Amino acid sequence: MKIRMKDIAKMANVSEAAVSLVLNDKPSRISEKKKNEIKAIAKELNYMPNIAAQSLAKNASQTIGVVIPDIENPFFSKLCKQLEEQFRARGYLTIIVNSNDDFAVEKNLIQMLLNRGVDGLIIALSNESFAYKKEQEQFLKMIDRPFVLVDRQVAFAGVNQVYFDSLAGGRLSTEYLLENGHRDIAFLTGDLELPGTLERIKGYKQALDSYGIAIKEDYIIETGYRFANGIEKAKELFRLKPITAVITSNDMVAFGVLKQAVTNGYTIPNDLSIIGYDRLEIADLLGISLATVEQNSSELTEEAVSLLTKMLTKEAEQTTKQILTPTLFKGESVKKIK
Amino acid sequence: MKIRMKDIAKMANVSEAAVSLVLNDKPSRISEKKKNEIKAIAKELNYMPNIAAQSLAKNASQTIGVVIPDIENPFFSKLCKQLEEQFRARGYLTIIVNSNDDFAVEKNLIQMLLNRGVDGLIIALSNESFAYKKEQEQFLKMIDRPFVLVDRQVAFAGVNQVYFDSLAGGRLSTEYLLENGHRDIAFLTGDLELPGTLERIKGYKQALDSYGIAIKEDYIIETGYRFANGIEKAKELFRLKPITAVITSNDMVAFGVLKQAVTNGYTIPNDLSIIGYDRLEIADLLGISLATVEQNSSELTEEAVSLLTKMLTKEAEQTTKQILTPTLFKGESVKKIK
Repeated sequence: MKIRMKDIAKMANVSEAAVSLVLNDKPSRISEKKKNEIKAIAKELNYMPNIAAQSLAKNASQTIGVVIPDIENPFFSKLCKQLEEQFRARGYLTIIVNSNDDFAVEKNLIQMLLNRGVDGLIIALSNESFAYKKEQEQFLKMIDRPFVLVDRQVAFAGVNQVYFDSLAGGRLSTEYLLENGHRDIAFLTGDLELPGTLERIKGYKQALDSYGIAIKEDYIIETGYRFANGIEKAKELFRLKPITAVITSNDMVAFGVLKQAVTNGYTIPNDLSIIGYDRLEIADLLGISLATVEQNSSELTEEAVSLLTKMLTKEAEQTTKQILTPTLFKGESVKKIK
Repeated sequence: MKIRMKDIAKMANVSEAAVSLVLNDKPSRISEKKKNEIKAIAKELNYMPNIAAQSLAKNASQTIGVVIPDIENPFFSKLCKQLEEQFRARGYLTIIVNSNDDFAVEKNLIQMLLNRGVDGLIIALSNESFAYKKEQEQFLKMIDRPFVLVDRQVAFAGVNQVYFDSLAGGRLSTEYLLENGHRDIAFLTGDLELPGTLERIKGYKQALDSYGIAIKEDYIIETGYRFANGIEKAKELFRLKPITAVITSNDMVAFGVLKQAVTNGYTIPNDLSIIGYDRLEIADLLGISLATVEQNSSELTEEAVSLLTKMLTKEAEQTTKQILTPTLFKGESVKKIK
């Protein structure tokens, strides 16, 4: 049974207004004794104020919706946790929804969050939405509350975004391999529909160019983001190419390549150098020192939370695009050759 | 800008009622030509029906709230993903909230979900709530919508629960170590406030008893659930005890012990046998074949979703407690000794 103010009023033999004044610590002419009695009853009954009613009164529900594509991916689950903590510190509750990388689900979920009156949104778009670019843009521009896109960038203007510089990320890892003597470098890219993927490929090509190395288009293989994708594409790769190094779309895929490499009898990094993306903690934990492009997720969440909060309090009027710089963690999965 | 029915009505030069009839495919005397025009406008404007309004009409919001203690723990993020997929298949949208193992936050979040009109809840309780047992029970009994507790069991009756048999889990791993000749078996337990932890300890003691081995209370060490907890307690353990094997509260803690064991110059399983709990996929992925008690999370989520759905459709009237049986994955982290 949910306890309401009127239940407490009845038990304390006072008006509901009196209970409200006391429980909200408002000044009143109610005696200290009665005040204590009311508070004791509220405590005894485990009374909890109705947040919806409070937010109606304040005209703010104090809730943020977080839309992410894959809750099981450690990069995103960490992001959720950080967002929840940072919004809580600013007095907001966080609702998380998982689009499962499905655009139709994503639209439904966002619509539901809007209907339920969230104050604002943090959105990491589904991969699938990038296959429907016009609809994606239309949909986002229809959202009538403040929102910030994180991690997966869009190419059009007019929306707030915080993301990492993918071109720099692609260049960093390629350059590091080049410095270590590698010339046959495969790239298991992410989804080719994503602007971020295209940027990373651009970075990869720029780096090769700067070393005067011809780009082999068959070294660039579109891959997903999961462990199984890494295994699958590694099989393909090892059959066909005389490569000495691989760059992957993320660490999960790098782990898949690693696993398949071991299955094929390769030792890492002696037979194959690998560079991932994300710097997932689990790699460190398990003693696998994977070279990887690190995107500091706290930096991302802090910027996004700060930006959205400003929008909610009307401090930020113009749309902004914040591009963060990734760094390279060198690990031990790259071997110097020649 | 959010497109409403009246905007479409205006553009098509018809009444709002006519638009509603056409977009909901209701019979009407509107010409096919006009129908097509209305649909084309709705499509062009990317019109989306207001779900809140629809759910008011249907008197069901079709939303489930999922409350979990630690979104970053892979066991729970997997659980969320499975719940989302299964509820979606049954026509429900899922909202996830992360209590961060904090009871006050958990209460706030559940209250918010109730205020926002979720149809039902799946709750994996925060550890902290078990330190306030009376309040925890009161709070849960105040929830005026169907809910199912998963994973973390409570000792009181009157609530629906689906969880794994912890006594069996504790016994399974201890017996396996005993069969392999181990006699000095430490147990890095979870939180001693949790009924599940007490059950696991009971299973551990039962197994030792059945082998006629005296229980050493200083081998039972209360530990948390995170990687860092494993490292910390392993340091303590390795300093003091002549143990040959360790059972841990979960795999993350086992990874911590593993890491610390390697730091101390031990090789696994030669110098130390380890058994975890959960069978996280990442262990397999990374080629660490950790012996662990497996709790099939699909089994858990299927039972919970099925039970909650029945409650929502009034098919289940009585409260039920479903106890699932864990199994042992033997891995390669246990050595036969003597």
